[in-house]
Amino acid sequence: MPELRKDPVVGRWVIISIERGKRPSDYASPSHKRRVAGFCPFCPGNEYTTPDEIISFRDDSGNWSLRVVPNKFPALQIDGQLEKLGEGIYDKMSGIGAHEVIIETPDHFSSLSTMPRKGVEDVLWAYYKRIKDLKNDKRLKYVLVFKNEGEAAGASLEHTHSQLIALPIIPKLVREEINSARNYYEMKERCIFCDIIQQELEDGRRIICENELYLAIAPYAPRAPFETWILPKSHQSHFCPPDNSFGLLAEILQRILKQIDKLLDIPPYNYILHTSPFSDENNEYYHWHIEFVPKLTKIAGFEWGSGFYINPTPPEEAARYMREVEI
Amino acid sequence: MPELRKDPVVGRWVIISIERGKRPSDYASPSHKRRVAGFCPFCPGNEYTTPDEIISFRDDSGNWSLRVVPNKFPALQIDGQLEKLGEGIYDKMSGIGAHEVIIETPDHFSSLSTMPRKGVEDVLWAYYKRIKDLKNDKRLKYVLVFKNEGEAAGASLEHTHSQLIALPIIPKLVREEINSARNYYEMKERCIFCDIIQQELEDGRRIICENELYLAIAPYAPRAPFETWILPKSHQSHFCPPDNSFGLLAEILQRILKQIDKLLDIPPYNYILHTSPFSDENNEYYHWHIEFVPKLTKIAGFEWGSGFYINPTPPEEAARYMREVEI
Repeated sequence: MPELRKDPVVGRWVIISIERGKRPSDYASPSHKRRVAGFCPFCPGNEYTTPDEIISFRDDSGNWSLRVVPNKFPALQIDGQLEKLGEGIYDKMSGIGAHEVIIETPDHFSSLSTMPRKGVEDVLWAYYKRIKDLKNDKRLKYVLVFKNEGEAAGASLEHTHSQLIALPIIPKLVREEINSARNYYEMKERCIFCDIIQQELEDGRRIICENELYLAIAPYAPRAPFETWILPKSHQSHFCPPDNSFGLLAEILQRILKQIDKLLDIPPYNYILHTSPFSDENNEYYHWHIEFVPKLTKIAGFEWGSGFYINPTPPEEAARYMREVEI
Repeated sequence: MPELRKDPVVGRWVIISIERGKRPSDYASPSHKRRVAGFCPFCPGNEYTTPDEIISFRDDSGNWSLRVVPNKFPALQIDGQLEKLGEGIYDKMSGIGAHEVIIETPDHFSSLSTMPRKGVEDVLWAYYKRIKDLKNDKRLKYVLVFKNEGEAAGASLEHTHSQLIALPIIPKLVREEINSARNYYEMKERCIFCDIIQQELEDGRRIICENELYLAIAPYAPRAPFETWILPKSHQSHFCPPDNSFGLLAEILQRILKQIDKLLDIPPYNYILHTSPFSDENNEYYHWHIEFVPKLTKIAGFEWGSGFYINPTPPEEAARYMREVEI
């Protein structure tokens, strides 16, 4: 019999097909191996086609290894007053915010899973530096850092890149997570994610891999097959480098991406960095983490319209497949 | 400047691109004109390939015009005990429920927008009858009725059909809507949807069409371009036929679908029936309605991961385009 499982943080129920779990080979996903070598605005030599660089990492000769630029077609606008208005029963505000692109490498044919580990570390540093800088803008409340990899996952350019959107509001799902974690803390005086980590470490079935500082698990109630969360093992409320290094985070993130690429033939994917809002960055109740979801199924409208998910691969099996991949 | 708008019911903020609103022709959607005439389990003559019929509508000669059958690969199972269990910090229950398919017509090449209006009316009757019957099963709390049209929207068979999933829980987004509507009622002694309807009727810019009993609008904070809601103008908490007829609902639903097909070249789409849970069907605070979303953009993972949407077509423009379509 299938199982209904509840995510303990946001309270979402999902149906998990326990008996006939789908195997990795059952998902025919559009592989996004890089092929096109035509004109690419993110490649070296074409820097003039992007808006003015915000930051970059460069070697002694001045060659860049990573650039952060404003999105050429930004969803929000950085200049202007933040005005809040009512319209009868409705609420709106001006679309103030930032929309930036992190060009992760000059190499058009590289990806987060194939580049040198130092490159992945730099990408994490870029996230960190941009969040820290945007925090100084008092109009903004949250930075959503995310990556769409592959056209089916929403990437409009194939040259590997991440994005961030800095917002004058806290997105609904983030707010729900935060509120729920705060309620749990008020009840138990413990962080709900710390409790999850402890239970997962004791149980073991949903652990994908770990290192000294980070744990990667298949969550108990995943919305989609092979959904993976990466969490710091010790309590940390907002995204930051412990001991001034992102080395071990880069290690586990790249390991997950290599495993996924091998297991599912380079599938498109999304990941989202979940961290505390600016207003309460240091707290006892929330625990930053990365939520990674490969894009294996077409269906979407129904799921996001109902908040209800059917997942044909139990997380225990997904974690086992991931553990067994040799990279 | 773009605008941030908040949905008054569920509190979701979306970014609306006000200035350079995308036109219908800017969305290259995979048209789902019917083409395949190979073996189809939903076509007449192949009834033996589906599980045993639950109900059907037939003429005097016994030929069916609509059939409801169990889904051959059900997400939930109707037989068994509903058991609820804890697993440490986690909660689960047995996957008890129903998963049914409404085969809307015997004609493989027909669709809700092209079939005779009487056919659409019958589909609505089938929804109503199945909900009414499933309500008798005391293990179940909610019936989610939805339609995936076109492969890109999640339909695995192209012969026009709807589905329903009857659940022992209330899905997260439904629960949020209900709770929010209840809170509003407690504050104002009015249904929030009735207030929305009144404001939209006075404003007029987001009205797509209306008839004596129903109103179709582009909601103020739509998640996606051309999102459309159909609501009964007078307060009705759960899906039911006023005056024992679904004629006018079939009329407005089919009109919307015809307009969308003409405007966007038969796009894939999803719609979901939002109605009150079994436990409190007759109430003052919730207002049933249909939420319709054409599937025009590829991106999905990021949106459902963050609860945050960017909509490049303002609803005022979407409604104007829809009003101007001649069908």
